[in-house]
Amino acid sequence: MAEYDLVIKGGSVATTEGVATMDVAIQGGTIAALGRDLQGRARIVAAGKLVLPGGVDAHCHIEQLSGGGLMNADTFETATRSAAFGGTTTVISFAAQHRGDSLRDVVENYSRLAAAGAVTDYAFHLWISDPTPETLEQDLPRLIEAGHRSIKIFMTYDRVRLLDEQVLDVMMVARKHGALVCAHAENHGMIKWMADRLISRGYVEPKFHGVSHPRVCEIEAFERLSRFSQLLDQPVMLFHVSTAEGAAVVRRARGEGIKIFAETCPQYLFLTAQDLDRPDLEGAKWMCSPPPRTTSDQEALWRGIDLGDLQIVSSDHAPYRFDESGKLAAGANADFKQIANGLPGLETRLPLLFDAMVSQGRSTIEKFVELTATAPAKMYGLHPRKGAIAVGADADIAIWNPDREVVLRDDGLHDNVGYNPFAGRRLKGWPETVLRRGETIISDGRLQAAPGSGQLQLRDIAASMRPTGRLSPEFDPATNFGAQLL
Amino acid sequence: MAEYDLVIKGGSVATTEGVATMDVAIQGGTIAALGRDLQGRARIVAAGKLVLPGGVDAHCHIEQLSGGGLMNADTFETATRSAAFGGTTTVISFAAQHRGDSLRDVVENYSRLAAAGAVTDYAFHLWISDPTPETLEQDLPRLIEAGHRSIKIFMTYDRVRLLDEQVLDVMMVARKHGALVCAHAENHGMIKWMADRLISRGYVEPKFHGVSHPRVCEIEAFERLSRFSQLLDQPVMLFHVSTAEGAAVVRRARGEGIKIFAETCPQYLFLTAQDLDRPDLEGAKWMCSPPPRTTSDQEALWRGIDLGDLQIVSSDHAPYRFDESGKLAAGANADFKQIANGLPGLETRLPLLFDAMVSQGRSTIEKFVELTATAPAKMYGLHPRKGAIAVGADADIAIWNPDREVVLRDDGLHDNVGYNPFAGRRLKGWPETVLRRGETIISDGRLQAAPGSGQLQLRDIAASMRPTGRLSPEFDPATNFGAQLL
Amino acid sequence: MAEYDLVIKGGSVATTEGVATMDVAIQGGTIAALGRDLQGRARIVAAGKLVLPGGVDAHCHIEQLSGGGLMNADTFETATRSAAFGGTTTVISFAAQHRGDSLRDVVENYSRLAAAGAVTDYAFHLWISDPTPETLEQDLPRLIEAGHRSIKIFMTYDRVRLLDEQVLDVMMVARKHGALVCAHAENHGMIKWMADRLISRGYVEPKFHGVSHPRVCEIEAFERLSRFSQLLDQPVMLFHVSTAEGAAVVRRARGEGIKIFAETCPQYLFLTAQDLDRPDLEGAKWMCSPPPRTTSDQEALWRGIDLGDLQIVSSDHAPYRFDESGKLAAGANADFKQIANGLPGLETRLPLLFDAMVSQGRSTIEKFVELTATAPAKMYGLHPRKGAIAVGADADIAIWNPDREVVLRDDGLHDNVGYNPFAGRRLKGWPETVLRRGETIISDGRLQAAPGSGQLQLRDIAASMRPTGRLSPEFDPATNFGAQLL
Amino acid sequence: MAEYDLVIKGGSVATTEGVATMDVAIQGGTIAALGRDLQGRARIVAAGKLVLPGGVDAHCHIEQLSGGGLMNADTFETATRSAAFGGTTTVISFAAQHRGDSLRDVVENYSRLAAAGAVTDYAFHLWISDPTPETLEQDLPRLIEAGHRSIKIFMTYDRVRLLDEQVLDVMMVARKHGALVCAHAENHGMIKWMADRLISRGYVEPKFHGVSHPRVCEIEAFERLSRFSQLLDQPVMLFHVSTAEGAAVVRRARGEGIKIFAETCPQYLFLTAQDLDRPDLEGAKWMCSPPPRTTSDQEALWRGIDLGDLQIVSSDHAPYRFDESGKLAAGANADFKQIANGLPGLETRLPLLFDAMVSQGRSTIEKFVELTATAPAKMYGLHPRKGAIAVGADADIAIWNPDREVVLRDDGLHDNVGYNPFAGRRLKGWPETVLRRGETIISDGRLQAAPGSGQLQLRDIAASMRPTGRLSPEFDPATNFGAQLL
Repeated sequence: MAEYDLVIKGGSVATTEGVATMDVAIQGGTIAALGRDLQGRARIVAAGKLVLPGGVDAHCHIEQLSGGGLMNADTFETATRSAAFGGTTTVISFAAQHRGDSLRDVVENYSRLAAAGAVTDYAFHLWISDPTPETLEQDLPRLIEAGHRSIKIFMTYDRVRLLDEQVLDVMMVARKHGALVCAHAENHGMIKWMADRLISRGYVEPKFHGVSHPRVCEIEAFERLSRFSQLLDQPVMLFHVSTAEGAAVVRRARGEGIKIFAETCPQYLFLTAQDLDRPDLEGAKWMCSPPPRTTSDQEALWRGIDLGDLQIVSSDHAPYRFDESGKLAAGANADFKQIANGLPGLETRLPLLFDAMVSQGRSTIEKFVELTATAPAKMYGLHPRKGAIAVGADADIAIWNPDREVVLRDDGLHDNVGYNPFAGRRLKGWPETVLRRGETIISDGRLQAAPGSGQLQLRDIAASMRPTGRLSPEFDPATNFGAQLL
Repeated sequence: MAEYDLVIKGGSVATTEGVATMDVAIQGGTIAALGRDLQGRARIVAAGKLVLPGGVDAHCHIEQLSGGGLMNADTFETATRSAAFGGTTTVISFAAQHRGDSLRDVVENYSRLAAAGAVTDYAFHLWISDPTPETLEQDLPRLIEAGHRSIKIFMTYDRVRLLDEQVLDVMMVARKHGALVCAHAENHGMIKWMADRLISRGYVEPKFHGVSHPRVCEIEAFERLSRFSQLLDQPVMLFHVSTAEGAAVVRRARGEGIKIFAETCPQYLFLTAQDLDRPDLEGAKWMCSPPPRTTSDQEALWRGIDLGDLQIVSSDHAPYRFDESGKLAAGANADFKQIANGLPGLETRLPLLFDAMVSQGRSTIEKFVELTATAPAKMYGLHPRKGAIAVGADADIAIWNPDREVVLRDDGLHDNVGYNPFAGRRLKGWPETVLRRGETIISDGRLQAAPGSGQLQLRDIAASMRPTGRLSPEFDPATNFGAQLL
Repeated sequence: MAEYDLVIKGGSVATTEGVATMDVAIQGGTIAALGRDLQGRARIVAAGKLVLPGGVDAHCHIEQLSGGGLMNADTFETATRSAAFGGTTTVISFAAQHRGDSLRDVVENYSRLAAAGAVTDYAFHLWISDPTPETLEQDLPRLIEAGHRSIKIFMTYDRVRLLDEQVLDVMMVARKHGALVCAHAENHGMIKWMADRLISRGYVEPKFHGVSHPRVCEIEAFERLSRFSQLLDQPVMLFHVSTAEGAAVVRRARGEGIKIFAETCPQYLFLTAQDLDRPDLEGAKWMCSPPPRTTSDQEALWRGIDLGDLQIVSSDHAPYRFDESGKLAAGANADFKQIANGLPGLETRLPLLFDAMVSQGRSTIEKFVELTATAPAKMYGLHPRKGAIAVGADADIAIWNPDREVVLRDDGLHDNVGYNPFAGRRLKGWPETVLRRGETIISDGRLQAAPGSGQLQLRDIAASMRPTGRLSPEFDPATNFGAQLL
Repeated sequence: MAEYDLVIKGGSVATTEGVATMDVAIQGGTIAALGRDLQGRARIVAAGKLVLPGGVDAHCHIEQLSGGGLMNADTFETATRSAAFGGTTTVISFAAQHRGDSLRDVVENYSRLAAAGAVTDYAFHLWISDPTPETLEQDLPRLIEAGHRSIKIFMTYDRVRLLDEQVLDVMMVARKHGALVCAHAENHGMIKWMADRLISRGYVEPKFHGVSHPRVCEIEAFERLSRFSQLLDQPVMLFHVSTAEGAAVVRRARGEGIKIFAETCPQYLFLTAQDLDRPDLEGAKWMCSPPPRTTSDQEALWRGIDLGDLQIVSSDHAPYRFDESGKLAAGANADFKQIANGLPGLETRLPLLFDAMVSQGRSTIEKFVELTATAPAKMYGLHPRKGAIAVGADADIAIWNPDREVVLRDDGLHDNVGYNPFAGRRLKGWPETVLRRGETIISDGRLQAAPGSGQLQLRDIAASMRPTGRLSPEFDPATNFGAQLL
């Protein structure tokens, strides 16, 4: 038996199934063996450490121009660098089509940017805001079948939102060609109506951003999208669940056999509406959509995670500096509608969750691995290459020191945002060494990878993310009605 | 004690509370006394008969021009004549604003038409399809406060539907000035999407009208409107519930404390989708929106009635002849989208329900009275003048022969529609004598009232139809957010 | 037209349908007419007053010997006197069978006691604690058919509780012969287990009575009895709902079509567990089973009333003096299991509810009438004789002064209990004159009726309280299984 | 690097996380490495085969004397032989205490029997039917802490059932010392009542066994036990869910945060009530408790599995021959209450599920592994030794030929029962080679292991099976009530 390229020795290797002490042998960038006493030409001693799959962050905005013309603070280089420092080795960001854009060009452009800058591996959600016949009939089918197996739609925001019938069009293409549809699901009319009333009455500070997204606007949109999913038997991923009632809608829909999946983010598990209530525009740092809610929503989201109703936790990293290039682009007198929404989170996602779930004991290391790596890899078609420590998988590995304590600071991250919405928190557990396809990209607090060394991940769709063929009665041939509609 | 103008002697008088044999004394058009051995200058012998309050039909289209330019087959004269023959003494039809119309003018126009033709009393729902500032800020408040205490909105149909934010605007005006908001609640996008696919694939016959309104489009819209009601604490009446799941949404919303009320119609209790499945365009006679569903939906609606989740049964009388003036206006090759929706029902509503509930024993006479007269009168602010046999109320009375059997025929009704979607059914129980404010308007199978003898009913709003002041947290002053928004 | 015996002039007469000013004419003890300008040989001027049906209190313990040998503080004379002062004109108390008793003898004994003492009309629930073949096959059928149309069973208390199979036996007899089954539904094992642990650890004060009846013991028993009802298609009345979750079980069961009805009592609407937390044994005055809960349960119960899930409010009057004849029979060192449970409430039930529902505006006068008079009369088969102001009904009438304010005091009631658990409350609205079958029994603060002038009310069963014949699948002949079991 | 004892070469190794081709190296009875190109002194070629963890059957009756004195048809030797042929390598059977038995003696006796006969590894559920102080305070705590970490209780069957307060006693001991409580949960009173009525009316054939266990008796008992779990915050495993409503109770309870877990069995997934409807006593072969239900229940159970509400599928192997030693012990005229309940299933559990889930595509191989091996191992504290193919785990492995088709026959099994309730079914996929701790115990259709070579598995309790410390309010110290009760 020949020696392996590299062996990680003696760490506690964690998967969704369990934790055990063993060696991990890597050959040609993939995991060649797991076992005792494996020998390699190189070795990393991991005794006393946790050896985890690198994180998969399935929801982040990178080097993206907003509809309003504002550019993200992060390039692929700075964003994925930040991700890597936080133990994440694969990101899925957006190929964001604005109205008038050719979707194919959009994907090419983002691919070029990522190819030049990324230090982690990456993939794209196809962001559809202009479902023209060309988009729906040509570009989207080809891109899906080429391996871009997820689509992002918006139910709100004037510049990007789809009408209900357009949502159905997109879902139908996804159904036929095999893609997961992800949604920013909030009721557009309620938000618009609330914001107009607030601003016209002088309620303009950042905290009123939260008020302008009432809880029911999330609940309503979740219910609506569940019904679309039910009609077409097409799986849907609800992004960033923020409320207890939202989680309850997910549970109820799933119980009815509707194929709803759901994500939440650290900001909904660790922040509240109070975080926006600060003097002047300071609260803008915590503005995101939907807004953080209450501590009892946090509890409900944790329960949703325990119950399996929420399957993944992503960062929704949306980076804007707290200066005129970002949050303050509209000046010091801006009302909340003029301030970009979004928080940085690529780097802190895993440490925040590790601290809560593992160090503080709210859950288990197995569930942490599932939530942050294995489940997103499976849902988005990256598995079995990504998301697990298993023979044959890419050797994307984060070696965590479970005892290291870190106090988050505004200036401690490796992105280009300049503040940290979680600053001040003391966390226990930190990823110290990170490997991507067998190469060490983070060690000793330093980045070891060159910009552009990350690779695009084309994907297949998991069987569990496909329609099952159990259709709404309207489509049922047995009723003699509409069987050929699909 | 002077003699009364008129006494109805010895009938079984039914109210929501019970049935008992007594005399009903009428003086000056109102009920002056209930009791034994009352004496009058005139008398109607009602021994062996049931003496019921005249029906209140809270949902019908009369002498109305559709958005597409098609006129109803019925004028106020023919429609209210038909209603009276069926035991109904008050109707609420629509003052239908089309886009560009002044709402005030609309009300004036319909008032003039009704004043000229109606033989029953009547009121108007304010149908809003153009919520301009003038409509919202001037006309609507004035008309509500003048006694037009109900508003109709549409969530579908291109020419009349409101966007979500417009729905909220209208609900807010209703909340401030005291009106009930009634809604045709179906998801517009789903219907449009389904209809486009059906027609483009050649599924054009009337039965595909039903397919184009999938069950979930009702469910979704009910859920959405419930959330609007929850946000603003404004009562909403859901018109024409057609599905079991729709009734379940109502129940769930009510259980959460949301002020949702609901109506169904005879077509959903007695017809099914199969009724549309006829050769050529014949099925068009049974086309209405939403479409009739299945027998198990019928059962669920009956249970919703029993449970109090559905409070009233109206006709949704929408009269179109089965000829080129109505259903066939677009010719013999029309697809289902080109065919007017609607059924006649003013005259058959009460006999159909009486037969099912009383003669066949599915329910009780008390519940029949509540469902068809007392509850609609209360909900729409006609009570205590209308809807009950009680001292002080208008003497609107229908004397029923509980044993009379009638077989419905296409040519047996007194409207101007020319067919009867319930033709062929044998019903037991029929209203033989009808009084309106103490005057006999139907007896011996003949109309005794002159066109224009009906009166407009201005209304107050019932306390139970008002917001309670328990607001969504977003509006709660305690949260320091948005208290003054309302 | 001859003059009537008595006319109540010009009051606001309230029924479940509405309120209107009219006269009420009484002849031969029943209501002969309602109307304007009625003339009588005698008259009561009621201008400015409310004329309501006398209350029906469907749950009270009178002159009853407990299983432990303790006698109620009230005889039929003192209890019904107290009821009358509080505006109640009919009570349903218990013919309480202890083990070994002949049910027929029990009914005879209680009938004799009531005939001697009662000043209001009365009926009996048949309390079954010994379902021997004689009881089930002979006495119970005969008594039901003689007009004792309700049965009381217990799921807890060692001396009276039935096993599950015995509950089914009793329900089956009720089903066959037409009676409503009422239940004290709490889980016996949980209470026993909790009480044993509490007492063995020294938690013996009255407040631990509440702890020994955990919320789930009510929830569980409601669920269990709902399943029995579902199995046999037999209506069940759940007595004294105390928790939000209990009310939710009722709602869910009803939504599933299970024939569950429910009652709550003033102690669950106006008291909380804190009322038991007093020095020494003082808390014993507030001990009842189930115990009062929290203010949020109170809110949930009010919502249950609004939604129609809870149909009636009774007193559960269970009178014991706070001395060695009652609460303190086991001495000053008694633990909570040795203290009799129960509160007086016959006299305060209506004023407490009137104040909350009408004076404070939580509900309406119509709902007050329904909850306290009409609904119990209907459910227990006393309607149309009792529970309504309607032509032909018994002239059981309470004339309320809606403006009179009364501060409740320990010594202000007319029962024989000696304390008032609601002492200290200021209430607005009080019944000043009370008629029973046309005779004034209370006026000017004085009782005008002789002991024994009350009459036994034999009853029929309302159609809505009967099984509907929709059976559990196990009994369905279509399955070929067990059709003849019932 | 030394050679391993044995390497399984080139199979598709399946875990709950995924499937991949790799070698499995075994050293000293445990799995030493997973990887490519592993070398061993011995090898098994598994190319084209599936390499799965040996099944864990957590519910079976072996060599057990029933309360009625009837002995199981299987000894540990015959039962575990049968299990091994079916791919199962660990069983959990019962140490069944009858009333009067010392629990400690019972465990010793069963341990002795198993030690002599078992060819698979094994553990015991502590079956409590006599919760004396000695049992509760001495034997049970010691046995739990010695590694018998699960308890079985019955809510029905005269000879073994516990009263509610006894259930609470047992749950409290389990809570304190760390054991899972498993329950046969059916309502005793309903079953008794139904059976008595059926038999007294002559409905005595086996098919009436099903009727005597109405659906609601399962629903009710699940609800009750959920409430006990809620009161004490003690996890409970509901055995053999048979109905859609039962699965719904589980889902609802879990959604409320109650720690309910649930199992179903092949008989509820593949049989129906119709299987009992056979001439004479033939139906007795399919008699088990609860009885098989309908095909729509089967669908609901599959959905419950998909949703994670039902976590495991066990056999509930309860072996009785169809002769006078077993099913027919009471003779040819026996009524259904005199016939032993139970089916054989140890050998067919895995092939039936594999065929349905994998070959027919209803689910995935990963879910099959989870349901039949990993999840039961985790829940019952056998993990990480058992239930997974992972480094460090016991080398309990079944090598399946996914293409092998087998038609089940009455005489094809290796137990001692003599019939197969699934006879006639054609299954695709069969375990051909089975290893237990690295030793081949089944190959070439022959048993290779000696009786008594199986080992007792003492267990720890998984963190997820422990109470969380979130208590019912009654126990909450903050309420000042009852904090020290636990």
